[in-house]
Amino acid sequence: MSIEIIAVGNEILRGMVVNTNAAYLSRRLTEEGWSVTGQTTLPDEMSLLTQGLDEALTRSTVVIATGGLGPTLDDNTAGCAQGLFSNAPQSIENTVGTAPGFLFAENKRVLFLLPGIPQEMEQMFEESVLPYLQKHLPPPKFFREALSFYLLRENDVDPLLRKLQAQYDIDMGIYPSYSCLSVVLRGRNSEHVAAAKKAIAEAFKSSLMPAAKLEEALHFWMKKHRKTLAFAESCTGGYMSSQITALAGASDYFLGSIVCYSNRLKQQLLHVSSETLQQHGAVSSETAQEMWKGLLQTTGADYGIAVTGIAGPTGGTDEKPVGTVWYALGARGENPEVGTFHLQGNRQTVIHRATRRLFAFLLKKIL
Amino acid sequence: MSIEIIAVGNEILRGMVVNTNAAYLSRRLTEEGWSVTGQTTLPDEMSLLTQGLDEALTRSTVVIATGGLGPTLDDNTAGCAQGLFSNAPQSIENTVGTAPGFLFAENKRVLFLLPGIPQEMEQMFEESVLPYLQKHLPPPKFFREALSFYLLRENDVDPLLRKLQAQYDIDMGIYPSYSCLSVVLRGRNSEHVAAAKKAIAEAFKSSLMPAAKLEEALHFWMKKHRKTLAFAESCTGGYMSSQITALAGASDYFLGSIVCYSNRLKQQLLHVSSETLQQHGAVSSETAQEMWKGLLQTTGADYGIAVTGIAGPTGGTDEKPVGTVWYALGARGENPEVGTFHLQGNRQTVIHRATRRLFAFLLKKIL
Repeated sequence: MSIEIIAVGNEILRGMVVNTNAAYLSRRLTEEGWSVTGQTTLPDEMSLLTQGLDEALTRSTVVIATGGLGPTLDDNTAGCAQGLFSNAPQSIENTVGTAPGFLFAENKRVLFLLPGIPQEMEQMFEESVLPYLQKHLPPPKFFREALSFYLLRENDVDPLLRKLQAQYDIDMGIYPSYSCLSVVLRGRNSEHVAAAKKAIAEAFKSSLMPAAKLEEALHFWMKKHRKTLAFAESCTGGYMSSQITALAGASDYFLGSIVCYSNRLKQQLLHVSSETLQQHGAVSSETAQEMWKGLLQTTGADYGIAVTGIAGPTGGTDEKPVGTVWYALGARGENPEVGTFHLQGNRQTVIHRATRRLFAFLLKKIL
Repeated sequence: MSIEIIAVGNEILRGMVVNTNAAYLSRRLTEEGWSVTGQTTLPDEMSLLTQGLDEALTRSTVVIATGGLGPTLDDNTAGCAQGLFSNAPQSIENTVGTAPGFLFAENKRVLFLLPGIPQEMEQMFEESVLPYLQKHLPPPKFFREALSFYLLRENDVDPLLRKLQAQYDIDMGIYPSYSCLSVVLRGRNSEHVAAAKKAIAEAFKSSLMPAAKLEEALHFWMKKHRKTLAFAESCTGGYMSSQITALAGASDYFLGSIVCYSNRLKQQLLHVSSETLQQHGAVSSETAQEMWKGLLQTTGADYGIAVTGIAGPTGGTDEKPVGTVWYALGARGENPEVGTFHLQGNRQTVIHRATRRLFAFLLKKIL
């Protein structure tokens, strides 16, 4: 059985909207045991949309399409789908918004139409689509294991994975992201999956994370050990904080972040001295250390990260080019770890990479 | 001429990665005048990948594929593509990372292979792919206009757009997002596009934004009027700040944000009184007002937004359910605008919607 995901909308084909719906549906279907064989984006134009839906229904047993169900002039999905079936659809209740969804089922072809708004789509998928699939088209039995590592690279794990793939009947994937990566193992033989998992976990045990994401690993550690955490952010501009506060329950341990974009706030809230700022500059080892000291003093946190850098695109010099980051991090009562690194990439990339790297450094310190 | 975008990788089909590359390429190609007719995601498996590339090259003049070019066991794109062409590819220089890209061109079929890492892919697209397309397959001449409005909904603009679409030879789209929407007009007749733009801008002039996004509109206004801005964030947890600091040049006017997740920081950095917190709670009109007052006092900013609320999923009560937000915003020396609203959705949605709404409210106040 194959499931295909379709997104409908010129706004996606024109790049005005990132297609997060395909990622959500693919992730959830994979977690539940189905295979997603394709993701396609179709335009709003009726002939191309009808043709695309028809092709997908020929290729795949189940098609889940999102978008184009609203009341406005460019919403054509339901009309196009109706032309491909001889019977009427069942409607799917929308408990969050106004536009209902639809289920067409005929001659072993199943088509779900859901709204494009993520929160409505997600709710309707969980409440209606998933129960229908579990009942009528249950997934094949398989075993899945995932391992996540910080400060490892694809090339570090690849040789072992190639060896294990030759040895066991499993399907593997490496999913790198900034300062961490995940390895996912899938197979029908539970012993093969377990043996491969064990081999990988042992080979890289010093980098093994107790969660899939760096911020989640910090989150669970802080909760478990009942420690508090705070940040002093200059170049990351609140992004570090937003990553932690996105996790439910962060208020149990996260005290807050002082986003000190201006030097005035660095002095006033973190007690960085004007001499330090003048002599060494805002992006320096000295400023990072004083920020960290002031942060722990002001907030009373058990752990803190202070970061200052040049996110760009302007503000770089020969001595301190764009992408230069200084940091201080560690536990109250101990000397902080102080260091610097240089990151490639545009402004957003520097901010995201700096955040991930500092999360990984703190994790390394505490794990 | 039609251009199709392909993403290669099981990690995308399994929803572990959001396909932002398709959005980037689609947006840039659209801006430059080409039409993107499809976006597809293909698996790493060689037979399905080869078949998918072959089908795309049959349907479309130009295919741009990203991903699967690295050195690891699941990187098969280049090998599969070579099987579809009789001549060898030209390599495309990667000035950011290690894996080069490839250009296959034969019998009026053009296939670009780029790495999946966004920053490498984007650089190579701008430096190599775009110049090639401009030279060999220049886009048709057309006219495009976009208008953005805050605090308008699809239903508000739809009747006028339907009328204009009947009247002029143009293609229109409505792109709603939280607390704002954009209308994009495209057509070959510049007078038709200009006339429709004028009609829409006049009909909704009180909501017209001078930029495509709420944060950009605030950004440009603050820069232009040489005013400073600061935030005091509780429930938004640094997300408001991260949206502003993502914009290059934010340091010209943005002083910082006090992310006061704990009551201690609300008291210590923003001088919220313990009586207020005890009597009215952290999520209240009184706390929002004291946060705002303390924010302007501490930072010396010209404009400030203070926000406190319950992002969920826990922490809600009958009186103050999850999604309850209190805010105070405005200019120093004036009384702040104080108010509350209730938002639907999960934790992330509440944080994102609260941020957009408060940006729209401040924009409404200053424009």
